Amino acid sequence: MIVARSRAELRSALGGRRSAFVPTMGALHEGHLALVRRAREIDSFTTLSIFVNPAQFGPKEDLSRYPRPIERDLDLAESEGVSVVYLPPAEEVYPEGFSTYVSPGSSAVEWEGSLRPGHFQGVCTVVLKLFNILNPHTAVFGWKDLQQCAVISQMCRDLDVDIRLDFLETVRESDGLARSSRNVYLSPDERIIAGRLNVLLRSAGDRIAAGERSAAVVADLLEAIRAAGGTPDYAALVDPVTMKSLDIPQKSSRIMMVVRVGSVRLLDNMPIAP
Amino acid sequence: MIVARSRAELRSALGGRRSAFVPTMGALHEGHLALVRRAREIDSFTTLSIFVNPAQFGPKEDLSRYPRPIERDLDLAESEGVSVVYLPPAEEVYPEGFSTYVSPGSSAVEWEGSLRPGHFQGVCTVVLKLFNILNPHTAVFGWKDLQQCAVISQMCRDLDVDIRLDFLETVRESDGLARSSRNVYLSPDERIIAGRLNVLLRSAGDRIAAGERSAAVVADLLEAIRAAGGTPDYAALVDPVTMKSLDIPQKSSRIMMVVRVGSVRLLDNMPIAP
Repeated sequence: MIVARSRAELRSALGGRRSAFVPTMGALHEGHLALVRRAREIDSFTTLSIFVNPAQFGPKEDLSRYPRPIERDLDLAESEGVSVVYLPPAEEVYPEGFSTYVSPGSSAVEWEGSLRPGHFQGVCTVVLKLFNILNPHTAVFGWKDLQQCAVISQMCRDLDVDIRLDFLETVRESDGLARSSRNVYLSPDERIIAGRLNVLLRSAGDRIAAGERSAAVVADLLEAIRAAGGTPDYAALVDPVTMKSLDIPQKSSRIMMVVRVGSVRLLDNMPIAP
Repeated sequence: MIVARSRAELRSALGGRRSAFVPTMGALHEGHLALVRRAREIDSFTTLSIFVNPAQFGPKEDLSRYPRPIERDLDLAESEGVSVVYLPPAEEVYPEGFSTYVSPGSSAVEWEGSLRPGHFQGVCTVVLKLFNILNPHTAVFGWKDLQQCAVISQMCRDLDVDIRLDFLETVRESDGLARSSRNVYLSPDERIIAGRLNVLLRSAGDRIAAGERSAAVVADLLEAIRAAGGTPDYAALVDPVTMKSLDIPQKSSRIMMVVRVGSVRLLDNMPIAP
């Protein structure tokens, strides 16, 4: 495995070859490793980037405390058979004078987009930059960040990015909690609460799949989340392409929630079979 | 010469080959043909796009009356040895739901950027899309649109676009008027005024090159433009990378002006040898 710590090192490691690419912010867990395994199924020449992207964190968010276990990440990447890891320094990604951004589309307006102003602009900008630098044929993302999937898909459609996107279902702990690099922030008590939330989400999804209208089910879900000790930012049944909320599920609809438990924001979503 | 009227036709015409590319809005004149000749020097496989980009016109601007002499354009392109012309329909470039844009950098803030809100967002977005669709190794632009050169350069730097940019000096009429597709709008009297303006610009440049401070020279230039019958929007000595105005010229500085003559906005600029 080659670890490229600059664009020049990366270019020489790639030698013009396109790859199956997994962009990450590091702190790799089973969810990321599932993305890597999918990438390796697509192409044995697999690339992974580790970059905690300052442009997608708000001024009051957790950029400085975001976990950066870099040696462990490199060991995991190597053991999964990653060919090249790109580990750029922030000053190479955002040099002095940097000021051109991607302004994300309509799917970025609601939900995380309204609660985290600038977040998806930062996500789109760094993803487009990484796409341009690595020039992969395929990029693999996790459904865990549902709206991110929608916004990046829309960016690639709208800006004619010639890269195939592949999305993988969320990997979960044994109690169903979605794997996330931020789960390490949870205290033992909070961890128990967090583990109950996905069960509530799944029940709500089942009720919608069984024919109940989403508005009533989501209202119950929000109440159940509060009763379980979480503080919901939002929950909704949505179209995963447009991110518009739906009353009645369609073929690919997903139910999603964002809940604060202590100081941690937990994102989760799952498909609804109508 | 292949004329590709859709992305599918273009893809089949390119067959994965990279090219030297000249993006245009059509109404081709000697300035464009000089860009094509430069492109052909770089690579005999040369592509040209013709697309009057609605996203870079303001609501009160001349989108509907912009000249579209398409058969003549295709004849000119063919006679210059262009390999592939891409002539996309607007609904393929901006389909229903299109909403992801490039938000241009600091070089887009002043001058045209402040007088034509959204203009450079439209320019950057369509140029990035064309770059992604055509995947050229080189793109050739004219210095005539000075700030456009700066903004596109910054976009390519900031977003890591792997395309070499080449800029060519402005082609002029016999009296020095910069060639422009919009010159056809000038009445005979306006055409005479337009022809005098570049002489004023050149004299101002010479005075700055001889050591005079730009502020005083530009003030005189603006007055001389008005005396000649033009209405200046602005004039300045600028750094062509940052588009910041300068008091004393540096190695690559250029003097620029934008002047309205009748209903036509004329852009011109030229280098200053300090």
